[in-house]
Amino acid sequence: MKEIAHTPKPPYFAVIFTSKRTDFEDEYADVAEEMFRLASIQPGFLGVESADDGLGITVSYWASLEAIQAWKRNERHMMAQDRGRADWYREYKTRVCKVERDYEYEAD
Amino acid sequence: MKEIAHTPKPPYFAVIFTSKRTDFEDEYADVAEEMFRLASIQPGFLGVESADDGLGITVSYWASLEAIQAWKRNERHMMAQDRGRADWYREYKTRVCKVERDYEYEAD
Repeated sequence: MKEIAHTPKPPYFAVIFTSKRTDFEDEYADVAEEMFRLASIQPGFLGVESADDGLGITVSYWASLEAIQAWKRNERHMMAQDRGRADWYREYKTRVCKVERDYEYEAD
Repeated sequence: MKEIAHTPKPPYFAVIFTSKRTDFEDEYADVAEEMFRLASIQPGFLGVESADDGLGITVSYWASLEAIQAWKRNERHMMAQDRGRADWYREYKTRVCKVERDYEYEAD
């Protein structure tokens, strides 16, 4: 999870999920782990990147908008989203994007 | 910087910059701070979100692709980019995206 995602050539899609958490931690880590695992086996999943240092940013990459919709409506994911609003998140914003181009650098 | 960006209604644009750093820290924080400050006064800048817990993710938001290009070619920013490749980044990936829709949640 702590690697830069190896995504294919654009175009593809990204979901930027930015969040601020409450102080309530119960079961958060377990459910987050389950969601990463479950997302990674969905059709059209291309990769995920995540960092949290007080502000949480998770970017997941997808082959199509249909794949994003299907994941949003996944039953376990919907339960986690409800629980997130009830317990874990003070605030979040989700942005659905089309990745139009990308470039990268890797040191020798 | 540790807040969720208040962006306008889509469409707008996002630059997702994901990075892994070297152990070399000299001047990194100062230059990063300067770049946040400088970006925020560019035409078309809409906001920025950043988190780093070993993987760094910075997402900046822009009104147009032209605004993104102009910032990429800003002279101070180009110097910082060169320095970043020489010293601070082991690896990074930049993705230029069009934000097509967004939704948000805020606890009562």
